Amino acid sequence: MMKQGTSLRVRLPVLVFVSEVVFLALYAIFVTYDDNANAKFQNNLTNPMDNSLYRDYPYFADVQVMIFIGFGCLLAFLRFYGFSGMVFNFLTATYAIQWAILVQGYFQFYSDGKIHLGVINLLNAEFACAVVLISFGAVLGKVSPVQLLVMALLEIPVFSVTEWAVLKYLKINDAGGSILIHLFACYFGLGVTFVLYRPSLNEGHHKEVTSYQSDILSVMGTLFLWVFWPSFNSALTFKGDDQHRAILHTFIGLSASTLTAFALSTIFNKRGKITMADVQNVTLAGGVTVGASVDMMISPAAAYALGVIGCTACMLGYKYLTPFLARRLRIQDQCGIHNLHGLTGLISCLAGICAILLASEETYGPSMYQIFAHRAPMEGDPKLLELQQLIPGLKPGLGRTAEVQAMYQVAAIFSTIAAAALGGVVTGFIMKLPFLAPFSDDFCFDDELFFDMPSDFDSLTAGLVKEMSNDENTKV
Amino acid sequence: MMKQGTSLRVRLPVLVFVSEVVFLALYAIFVTYDDNANAKFQNNLTNPMDNSLYRDYPYFADVQVMIFIGFGCLLAFLRFYGFSGMVFNFLTATYAIQWAILVQGYFQFYSDGKIHLGVINLLNAEFACAVVLISFGAVLGKVSPVQLLVMALLEIPVFSVTEWAVLKYLKINDAGGSILIHLFACYFGLGVTFVLYRPSLNEGHHKEVTSYQSDILSVMGTLFLWVFWPSFNSALTFKGDDQHRAILHTFIGLSASTLTAFALSTIFNKRGKITMADVQNVTLAGGVTVGASVDMMISPAAAYALGVIGCTACMLGYKYLTPFLARRLRIQDQCGIHNLHGLTGLISCLAGICAILLASEETYGPSMYQIFAHRAPMEGDPKLLELQQLIPGLKPGLGRTAEVQAMYQVAAIFSTIAAAALGGVVTGFIMKLPFLAPFSDDFCFDDELFFDMPSDFDSLTAGLVKEMSNDENTKV
Amino acid sequence: MMKQGTSLRVRLPVLVFVSEVVFLALYAIFVTYDDNANAKFQNNLTNPMDNSLYRDYPYFADVQVMIFIGFGCLLAFLRFYGFSGMVFNFLTATYAIQWAILVQGYFQFYSDGKIHLGVINLLNAEFACAVVLISFGAVLGKVSPVQLLVMALLEIPVFSVTEWAVLKYLKINDAGGSILIHLFACYFGLGVTFVLYRPSLNEGHHKEVTSYQSDILSVMGTLFLWVFWPSFNSALTFKGDDQHRAILHTFIGLSASTLTAFALSTIFNKRGKITMADVQNVTLAGGVTVGASVDMMISPAAAYALGVIGCTACMLGYKYLTPFLARRLRIQDQCGIHNLHGLTGLISCLAGICAILLASEETYGPSMYQIFAHRAPMEGDPKLLELQQLIPGLKPGLGRTAEVQAMYQVAAIFSTIAAAALGGVVTGFIMKLPFLAPFSDDFCFDDELFFDMPSDFDSLTAGLVKEMSNDENTKV
Repeated sequence: MMKQGTSLRVRLPVLVFVSEVVFLALYAIFVTYDDNANAKFQNNLTNPMDNSLYRDYPYFADVQVMIFIGFGCLLAFLRFYGFSGMVFNFLTATYAIQWAILVQGYFQFYSDGKIHLGVINLLNAEFACAVVLISFGAVLGKVSPVQLLVMALLEIPVFSVTEWAVLKYLKINDAGGSILIHLFACYFGLGVTFVLYRPSLNEGHHKEVTSYQSDILSVMGTLFLWVFWPSFNSALTFKGDDQHRAILHTFIGLSASTLTAFALSTIFNKRGKITMADVQNVTLAGGVTVGASVDMMISPAAAYALGVIGCTACMLGYKYLTPFLARRLRIQDQCGIHNLHGLTGLISCLAGICAILLASEETYGPSMYQIFAHRAPMEGDPKLLELQQLIPGLKPGLGRTAEVQAMYQVAAIFSTIAAAALGGVVTGFIMKLPFLAPFSDDFCFDDELFFDMPSDFDSLTAGLVKEMSNDENTKV
Repeated sequence: MMKQGTSLRVRLPVLVFVSEVVFLALYAIFVTYDDNANAKFQNNLTNPMDNSLYRDYPYFADVQVMIFIGFGCLLAFLRFYGFSGMVFNFLTATYAIQWAILVQGYFQFYSDGKIHLGVINLLNAEFACAVVLISFGAVLGKVSPVQLLVMALLEIPVFSVTEWAVLKYLKINDAGGSILIHLFACYFGLGVTFVLYRPSLNEGHHKEVTSYQSDILSVMGTLFLWVFWPSFNSALTFKGDDQHRAILHTFIGLSASTLTAFALSTIFNKRGKITMADVQNVTLAGGVTVGASVDMMISPAAAYALGVIGCTACMLGYKYLTPFLARRLRIQDQCGIHNLHGLTGLISCLAGICAILLASEETYGPSMYQIFAHRAPMEGDPKLLELQQLIPGLKPGLGRTAEVQAMYQVAAIFSTIAAAALGGVVTGFIMKLPFLAPFSDDFCFDDELFFDMPSDFDSLTAGLVKEMSNDENTKV
Repeated sequence: MMKQGTSLRVRLPVLVFVSEVVFLALYAIFVTYDDNANAKFQNNLTNPMDNSLYRDYPYFADVQVMIFIGFGCLLAFLRFYGFSGMVFNFLTATYAIQWAILVQGYFQFYSDGKIHLGVINLLNAEFACAVVLISFGAVLGKVSPVQLLVMALLEIPVFSVTEWAVLKYLKINDAGGSILIHLFACYFGLGVTFVLYRPSLNEGHHKEVTSYQSDILSVMGTLFLWVFWPSFNSALTFKGDDQHRAILHTFIGLSASTLTAFALSTIFNKRGKITMADVQNVTLAGGVTVGASVDMMISPAAAYALGVIGCTACMLGYKYLTPFLARRLRIQDQCGIHNLHGLTGLISCLAGICAILLASEETYGPSMYQIFAHRAPMEGDPKLLELQQLIPGLKPGLGRTAEVQAMYQVAAIFSTIAAAALGGVVTGFIMKLPFLAPFSDDFCFDDELFFDMPSDFDSLTAGLVKEMSNDENTKV
């Protein structure tokens, strides 16, 4: 009966088609090309190779691989949930990007009554999409695709408003998105999973297992994320030396956290072996940890240290915090996003604040006022004119001191977490509405509920039953 | 006995070595470097970073991923035909590109008695190769690798001549290759499969099934195609805003068709579930549908609408047209290329014609005469001089009106389809020659015929037998 | 008992943490940003888009995909050794790059007491890492991860010193790394495996088999290597026409060797079928063979011929030389690196020498003295001033004749092979030390020794036992 109630036949098409009609109307009314994509604005002074496309597209393409292939494979780590992991990721990402182009576009690329569309918007929309996919990690295997789309539908506006408010009013430094992407996504996801609590899953679920193939597929996803993470962390920095540093730091941080993850994995395994879940997740911690300070002059050694520290926190989180959250706080964090994005995000923010407090003209030269734009002198300050002779395009700032900037960073952390958690809880309640095809615990982690399965799937599930009875016999 | 007759031992090496000797001779006699790859033409006025390499190589690399990995994985969707899908794709693509460099090079890059070779030729050759691989989709599982190479050997010249004739005499707009790539490939493939008709396959074939792993692999292929399709559609446009729009439209079109595909998939499935074949194929329809107008000022909303419409046509084609073609017209279209490339290609062409008819200087500014090059005024027309002051490099055109250009587009559609279908039928007859290792229906969709199989393959096929007998028992 | 002695619990963490402390200290003391990544050196004359990042990063990203995904998948070809192939590759690569940034950085990017770090160092470090991974191929399945890290720890300095000495004292042309990468890696690996000789493996090992899935995964790895190999071979050439030619030659060489590999595979298979191991390895031979002359004006036809010749040598090596080396010379070359990197590397070097001897100003124009930098006239030679008017940045050379340059190339080949083989043998002896978790022959090619396996792994191994007993019955 419960299974009956989960058919997607009416629910999914209705949600999709209604969304499409609304999206199409909004695109038709509000979306036009930005100047770099508009034929009308090209003239004999335009050099085609100076088009913003050539600055943005390589990074956009790399992030696309991460979103669709990296995340898709990584989330396919469960033995009977490979279709869902990979395909729901595809569906949700597509939906989230379409919607983010509109919502985020309204907050960031709106002028003269129009959203001006270029590859830079797509890139920003993919970051918003990454937020949704990280949150998805908390509820993997426990929600229907309709619920996922509703989550995307609600999370994108909450995220966009938070992002806009933080950037407009608090004016922070967050090149790698530690606050706005990782912390937001994490606490939103935890908010959702808190509301969708399923007590029985704390006793384990017989389908919550991996297989030889699914583990390999998931490592492939990790490798795609690993390889292109430098592009992710550097996509929205200033061009030139800033982006160069962002790439160096991300690579070094990831590399240090990978090595650490292997060492810790064998320490925590009771037979001194490597655990694939650690390879799939903990290796990536360094990419998040360097995020908030990724474009600053923190030194390569600091990036290395951040990778080691982030990885250690992430690993300890998986071993001790995740079970604690599930049992005591009713927060069932399926993929451990609190370890990979929450704890590491917090460390990243702390490191970013330290980097801000330590920044000096001695280290950065005058370009300090470009990276820390809000520390630039205000309009009218004679120092501004002086600096503008050294850096022609420098915009007037707010004349903030390092300490003031640091306090705004702290304010951004807390307000982002609060907005995310609240948004997540409210979204969770909406996702629980019965017509969104929620299902009973029995059907968790099983592709069969929502997919037409190939004929060998039955023998795969039969394999599990046999293994379990063998285990039982061994125990007896 | 039939199986005996399919050994590749003599046939494949003879075909390959003869081809290689001929190719090598032709390369030695006719192929030299283009100016951008020739050391002799570099002097103190040459800026190395202005080399055409840096404009072309990123797109070439993306298309390489699509051809070798995207297509390869996508075609590996059958349970016992994964080796063949992926490896025959590799073999055929390599052969087709080598041959296309020569044949297409003769038509497009020939001067002073030499074919001038640069990355741009490789890129063009990969498009020719894509044509062969799309056609391959119609006969997947039913032809030997020797037959495939013969198909490539014949299709490349027919394609190159058609392309040359259409571009030289009809002078059309077709940035995304809707006419010359998708329609040509589709009708050529249908021509071939029409001749290679195997009546018994209409009753189904017991090995024409997927498996859990093969479905996942095939989705990975789809994702690689999806992610890099914007590069494919924009690789040969003008640089600057044209290429920028091509990327935006392709992304939006694909995105809209993906969402639509999920909704339609659950509608057409009798239990309201998602069908993996739809995820693998129908999601991609939007990339084809935006092709013919991909660099025009059609507006983002139009790209969205095209994605939805193309996807719907493609899905209806899979459900109704493909079975009809197989049963009534003897056209067995294994991968449904008529849906993904034929129907969507036709819609794309119609959209392109509309976009041509609606194009105005008001929307495009003077660069209209660059995009619609044949509408530019003719040599000697005073308007040309006027325009050349606005756009210095503008070449004289043919002074066509929008209506005339539209009629040439229509002519190109029909002549391309005719040339392709005819070429396909003739090629089909040649492929039927007995020494090309054709085989009986029993051996269709089975890697074992042409590959040395690993030892676990027998147990995989035994699994199928067991499932079938279980099914029988259940039915009884 | 032997199994007990292989726990990684103490060994791996100790090695990793000690390494990390040392690396971190060295990074802190010695590593700073290079000028392109240093905020302090940016001023109003700096154009951010001229940053070296934009020249180097695209090639770095491509090589990253090759190292982590290409190699990773390729090495996962064994049925019960997929985790190890992919994950040990990940671990070893990460470790090798971190270490190479320091060691190679000291030899190549050291000035004013600091190693100056930019993406170009990472790119060089990835080449050093490729050396380690190629050597790894010789001992795949027969060493513990601790032994692998020790191998990386020792191979990186031997490689860096050799590279530095050859480039500084012999001054050779080797754009694609045929001598310094492929020959070094090959003979180092053979040296190691010679010392780690396991006689019983010459009789075969029951787990040295592939599976349907592992073969497909491995072909995917091949395809990633294939697609990005042009970036690998051209990453360190001069920009402009040199890099353009390097990409053309690599593509053509790979393409020719791929076609040849298919033909030879069916010839050598006793039933005229295609062998997957050939598709996975022999197809790539052309990429190595064009290496030493990859940026020279050898003509596209010569690149084609090199692909065919390299592939043939590689295939013959697999069929005849590898078994001979294992049985007679105690050199068990698991992945056949001597065929894919040794034989092809030697052919490549010969081709490079021919290209050097044939090079003339007639073919290259004045830029001959840029490509063959050591043939440029010496400081003070009036010819130098003449040339510098044609090529402004030309540096004074050594005034070598083609014959002298060729002799230095020969000297480089022999000294590299000698250094590599000696280094490999010494490294092999160190790797044999008992506390590095070596293990008995029984545990070769088995993930279970070092990984916590998913529950379906037992049924996979049970499948093998069943197949073997079936085989036995059939034989009886």
